[in-house]
Amino acid sequence: MQGRDTGPHITISAFSWVPEVARGRVKCLRPRWALEEAGLTYRTHLVGPGEGAHPDYRAWQPFGQVPAYRDDEVSLFESGAILLRIADLAPALDGQDAQGRADVRTWVFAALNSIEFAATTAQFAQDWGVAVPDWVGARFDALAKALDGRDWVAAGRFTVADIMLASVLRQPGAEGPVAARPVLAAYLDRGLARPAFARALAAQFADFVSEPA
Amino acid sequence: MQGRDTGPHITISAFSWVPEVARGRVKCLRPRWALEEAGLTYRTHLVGPGEGAHPDYRAWQPFGQVPAYRDDEVSLFESGAILLRIADLAPALDGQDAQGRADVRTWVFAALNSIEFAATTAQFAQDWGVAVPDWVGARFDALAKALDGRDWVAAGRFTVADIMLASVLRQPGAEGPVAARPVLAAYLDRGLARPAFARALAAQFADFVSEPA
Repeated sequence: MQGRDTGPHITISAFSWVPEVARGRVKCLRPRWALEEAGLTYRTHLVGPGEGAHPDYRAWQPFGQVPAYRDDEVSLFESGAILLRIADLAPALDGQDAQGRADVRTWVFAALNSIEFAATTAQFAQDWGVAVPDWVGARFDALAKALDGRDWVAAGRFTVADIMLASVLRQPGAEGPVAARPVLAAYLDRGLARPAFARALAAQFADFVSEPA
Repeated sequence: MQGRDTGPHITISAFSWVPEVARGRVKCLRPRWALEEAGLTYRTHLVGPGEGAHPDYRAWQPFGQVPAYRDDEVSLFESGAILLRIADLAPALDGQDAQGRADVRTWVFAALNSIEFAATTAQFAQDWGVAVPDWVGARFDALAKALDGRDWVAAGRFTVADIMLASVLRQPGAEGPVAARPVLAAYLDRGLARPAFARALAAQFADFVSEPA
């Protein structure tokens, strides 16, 4: 949701322009999705071409990337840290007890470091014309096994861990591995069918200008 | 510290055998280091060759990797999630206010997803005989800039974010980028000079058997 002025004052950064192929894939989609699920309003700080290198923006996000985040209390970056912050503000998107919250944290990290890392390795291997290492497929097999019989990955409910994992599974390098495993394909479909995802995606597209300014 | 039976009952998993080249580099070093800094005792569950594929171990760590972690309250995996859990138990290793804790979370993720990812990309490129992408060097430049004038990366003190970042910077793919940037080399030296790091490293070596059983 954008625009209504209720609850904490949340700002996330997003790029004002990216090439066509990257639209819908910029990582500000992750907090947008979580904020839509939480019903929290937010503003976007649009980062124009070149602004990512500016010292003012680097003071907020040292690598010049998006998303960065701030609210009334804290400023932070890294999509994983931002999703955990949103879960603090919106407990419905977190586990409901100590073990559930531990599972959510675990799977936010696992989505990034065990799964996104595998997907990106597969993508690099394809781009660079080398064989995809065997461990990549084994990693997706293990994920499919972990998800088998579950609607959501952690804590027995939809959480920010699903937002991260589904976001990672729709990246280009994961397309083949997901399509080849019905459990993963069904999990991804379930996540992307959520109305909040569609709203987040539309909001990302709405913020792009047609030409780099 | 291993053996003394005070405080929470903490167990981490570690491999009982890895090839010579991997000794001192297995990721159970990260929680070992944090637990040594915290003065928390722990036991190791040693995972023998083949046990990583066993359903019992997969129920704890779905990818068959180490470390996994459990204490009296929760069970979890992923070194990032484990370090955040240890920071919950040992507040001296966390930020001391809301912004400090947000910085620590941010940099645990950044160490993994912005820096380890860059280091691994450099390593893959070298292994696969392709040019290291330009963004890798830019990432390390940005990190050096962020660390310039600071002893530690987050919250104005030594925290689990430094344990993660220093752990990542001593990986093979980071060696060249770190050596070429005095700020990063000094930061890494500062981290690895801590007595708790030496104890953690010795504990990892002490748990290896000489031959795969």
